[in-house]
Amino acid sequence: MLTTTFEAGERSRGPDELIVEEPMSIRLDDTLVATTMRTPGHDFELAVGFCLTDGLLAGEPVVQCRYCGTGSAVESGFNIVSVDTGGRAPTPTPRLNPTTSSCGLCGSASLDELADRLEPLPPSDPFAVELLAAMPERVRSQQGLFDVTGAVHAAAAFDRDGTVLHVREDVGRHNAVDKVVGRLLLDGALPADDLGLYVSGRASFELVQKAWAAGFTNMVAVSAPTSLAVATARRANLVLAGFVRGSRVNIYAPERVP
Amino acid sequence: MLTTTFEAGERSRGPDELIVEEPMSIRLDDTLVATTMRTPGHDFELAVGFCLTDGLLAGEPVVQCRYCGTGSAVESGFNIVSVDTGGRAPTPTPRLNPTTSSCGLCGSASLDELADRLEPLPPSDPFAVELLAAMPERVRSQQGLFDVTGAVHAAAAFDRDGTVLHVREDVGRHNAVDKVVGRLLLDGALPADDLGLYVSGRASFELVQKAWAAGFTNMVAVSAPTSLAVATARRANLVLAGFVRGSRVNIYAPERVP
Repeated sequence: MLTTTFEAGERSRGPDELIVEEPMSIRLDDTLVATTMRTPGHDFELAVGFCLTDGLLAGEPVVQCRYCGTGSAVESGFNIVSVDTGGRAPTPTPRLNPTTSSCGLCGSASLDELADRLEPLPPSDPFAVELLAAMPERVRSQQGLFDVTGAVHAAAAFDRDGTVLHVREDVGRHNAVDKVVGRLLLDGALPADDLGLYVSGRASFELVQKAWAAGFTNMVAVSAPTSLAVATARRANLVLAGFVRGSRVNIYAPERVP
Repeated sequence: MLTTTFEAGERSRGPDELIVEEPMSIRLDDTLVATTMRTPGHDFELAVGFCLTDGLLAGEPVVQCRYCGTGSAVESGFNIVSVDTGGRAPTPTPRLNPTTSSCGLCGSASLDELADRLEPLPPSDPFAVELLAAMPERVRSQQGLFDVTGAVHAAAAFDRDGTVLHVREDVGRHNAVDKVVGRLLLDGALPADDLGLYVSGRASFELVQKAWAAGFTNMVAVSAPTSLAVATARRANLVLAGFVRGSRVNIYAPERVP
């Protein structure tokens, strides 16, 4: 795409690579469960990762994942992905449907609901603090899209040695995490109980929820978490680090670092 | 909240202010239309702004906005806001409901749907490029929460002279924009046809859609826009600037800067 740049009174015109954003629908056993704006690529990972972190699989294995076309146009067909458990996953209830959460709505209620469906993570040795602080730089060196566009979020899974296993980029922070989780699921590597999750921005309630659902025991966010994200991580027994600045890093969960 | 900081092998423990994130439900004439994770504050602005930018008001005026309690608990009551048009707004159809968009889903389709309900913006003199490039610094000096937490998005309305009229901050980018739009709506200042909209992050399809719905003629984002955001701004006749680095700024829309 051609764009015009102004700098110190000078004008220039040249090509500019922008991050692509397209809607994608996810079906679980032929029921539409979500439509998300995402960066195309790793669509199957995104679809299965979403179904898992949203609690829709309920422990059932994924039998098949495929693009689901209507036959009318090739392009539109490639924006719908079907996740198939052979009907073993429970029929999805439209939890995001505006008609469901009508009262008692507050952060504590959301957290209680989450704790009802997820067990606290098993005790584990936390990763070294220096390793968590080093992850932003390690991951950034593997972020292809960010270098080009400067406008994309990243998530990554890494091990106890700091080796980066999978990096995924997306216009949506939650999608990047779902793509990483989906990759691990397709590899049979879940729960991720000896892996860490890196996110390039802030740790929100939603992202901590996804980390918990996938079984990560350590998580590091470049920016600061929200208060509800910290409360969730403490409830989950998840080590949550954030606000990384050089060698400086904060540990938000557990409440008291041993 | 007490957190532990590690820096260069040293550990310290101290208070840390985190950005608050709580769900809020929005009702329009007693129909629940959305539940969003937001930073509490300016809740009425958020509610009316969302209804407007999502196209739910269809030009009808807001008669009243109020917290809608269930009577059971004060706290939960303050997370539900009712926007009242006296029943004049069309009955909301659950467009975000997973069961609606079943095929033909692609960026062009989303853009076509938007163009069906929104007229292109009227021709206007674009704001000075130097002014657009200066907005990030001007707004940041008025961002109270960001200084404290380092984890919040901002949106602002500004005029042709570069005067910042309203700054709103939120854990969600879209919420910050809705709060600004809601303030203008409550002030009777819409359409915002001689105002600019500033957003602290990336310009996505969703944010450009909100700017268009509110009638802003100029928009500047600190980061780069997505390809669909640029296509939308060009269709809307909206001047879209972004990727501000010091005095350098890109103009993505219109396609050819006069």
